[in-house]
Amino acid sequence: MKKIINNPENFVKETVEGIKLAYPEKVDTLENDFRILIRKNNPKKNKVGIVTAGGSGHLPVFLGYVGEGMIDGCAIGNVFASPSSQKMYKMIKACEFGKGVLCLYGNYGGDRMNFEMACENADFDDIKTAQVLVKDDVASADENKKDTRRGVAGLVYAYKIAGAAAEMGYDLEKVVEITQKALNNIKTMGVALTPCIVPEVGEPTFKIEEGKIEIGMGIHGEQGIEIKDMMNADEIAQLIFEKLNKELKLQENDEVSVMINGLGATPLEEQYIVFRKIAKILNEKNINIIMPHIGEYATSMEMAGLSITIFKLDQELKELLKKPANTPFYTNINK
Amino acid sequence: MKKIINNPENFVKETVEGIKLAYPEKVDTLENDFRILIRKNNPKKNKVGIVTAGGSGHLPVFLGYVGEGMIDGCAIGNVFASPSSQKMYKMIKACEFGKGVLCLYGNYGGDRMNFEMACENADFDDIKTAQVLVKDDVASADENKKDTRRGVAGLVYAYKIAGAAAEMGYDLEKVVEITQKALNNIKTMGVALTPCIVPEVGEPTFKIEEGKIEIGMGIHGEQGIEIKDMMNADEIAQLIFEKLNKELKLQENDEVSVMINGLGATPLEEQYIVFRKIAKILNEKNINIIMPHIGEYATSMEMAGLSITIFKLDQELKELLKKPANTPFYTNINK
Repeated sequence: MKKIINNPENFVKETVEGIKLAYPEKVDTLENDFRILIRKNNPKKNKVGIVTAGGSGHLPVFLGYVGEGMIDGCAIGNVFASPSSQKMYKMIKACEFGKGVLCLYGNYGGDRMNFEMACENADFDDIKTAQVLVKDDVASADENKKDTRRGVAGLVYAYKIAGAAAEMGYDLEKVVEITQKALNNIKTMGVALTPCIVPEVGEPTFKIEEGKIEIGMGIHGEQGIEIKDMMNADEIAQLIFEKLNKELKLQENDEVSVMINGLGATPLEEQYIVFRKIAKILNEKNINIIMPHIGEYATSMEMAGLSITIFKLDQELKELLKKPANTPFYTNINK
Repeated sequence: MKKIINNPENFVKETVEGIKLAYPEKVDTLENDFRILIRKNNPKKNKVGIVTAGGSGHLPVFLGYVGEGMIDGCAIGNVFASPSSQKMYKMIKACEFGKGVLCLYGNYGGDRMNFEMACENADFDDIKTAQVLVKDDVASADENKKDTRRGVAGLVYAYKIAGAAAEMGYDLEKVVEITQKALNNIKTMGVALTPCIVPEVGEPTFKIEEGKIEIGMGIHGEQGIEIKDMMNADEIAQLIFEKLNKELKLQENDEVSVMINGLGATPLEEQYIVFRKIAKILNEKNINIIMPHIGEYATSMEMAGLSITIFKLDQELKELLKKPANTPFYTNINK
């Protein structure tokens, strides 16, 4: 085990301390609780609040997207574990700005159960809430069971769209409708090459053999579709593109955003090599790429591998994607 | 070997193809040469051009900083190898905007030799050039031999300051003077936990034993100061801080920027844990942190480890650091 940490029990708290010390003008902990991060000096008192939650170990997901133009609050649990419903409830209350609160999060059992309870509690306080679940990982279930799919890097696009819609001043129903429309058009699949290490465990919790690649592995090491002999970058890009496009059914002149997301240990050079192939496939089909995202957006600590997300846009979604954002990990200047 | 690449011989070209396809509005290759990236639509015809060069394998260094407010051109070689003087010369010519060109790069033998020749050639064309070398790695030589030190993550601060000074319209002499002043106040040291893999070699070119950490290792695997038993995050931060501060001699009320730079495979969580400790040390001494940088700024592909850079600011340097920048990998909104 080689991790640059102190006592593994303090991994999450010390991470959040670091974020808070780094961006005191952008984010703050809620009532000094190092499991709840909120946007600082939220300027709009009449907008839908956007909140999320999930386990730690995926930075920049989730904490890194708290800020202007994206999310207002984020509750986190231990590594790969949901935070409690009490923390979610406290966060929802802090992010009610007069138009209700959208809980936008990945489709995982613990998070779902806890958000259900938190929203019930908020209801007693007459806070209007809605829940939208991110289920973009096409590898996690077949299309006829897509309601059971997990949420992965597509979360980032969802935060961006919901956050921009909220900043427009739309009401909760409209923010939900737009976010759901976006999510219907966001599909992701990943591959993993090496495992990650949960700090409190201290060694990999699963193994991928030398010379092998796991297609469709989840960001907590959930089993993928298939283990194959190592493939090259173009083969990986082609395979994932076909899987995503089977559902997106992209047509000539469509517009898409593409995210190549490093899972932690995969060099940026390799991510660009994969992007290059996806861009070539799309160019051949006369499909336009808007605002590509290449880098580490949703990781599994030191896991090697990457995911590809394709987000099919319409005019409204494109405009919202381009709106400004300014969070610790995501800056967009609208030009 | 598990890398997401195609033919290793095409590693650099395909990486640059990816960058060009991703940011067609920001950067371009010079005359379709995939080893020279230049800023697109350079808006100022009367400013100092800022160029750099070096080996591939360090993204976002160097290519990622081509753009508004930072550098105008970048020539790259194979992985860990200098580009040729001819390419540097072509780049210098393309980045002459009427006020001469600053060649700003890390202190490595090949880059130095080739930039010398390129500048001589530019001189025949009556292009005024200056060279400023980045030598921020305190682990690479003792203080009495600091002119032999290597350049590492401090490059990024140097690009930021020189780029901002050039955008102010200063002449070459003044840009050189400011950049050199900045560099006198920029000190870096790193630690490595695992090696990286040069694509054409296919396996690690050096080894760090399980349970060990190499203090002061260079970004190409150059030998460090010492191999130690694995240390915890706070110990690493304390050790590096003391080494840097021996030279910076920070005083109460000083202002600094701090960069925690992941070398490739080290999770962002761990980088924040280290930043937290550095921030605490500085807070105790009443030293203010301005614009901290935490993330992967200068990597060695999949090497695990991180470096810490401290940049001591004066009023002029602080203002230049805060100026806007907009490159593929570095966005700063001046607020």
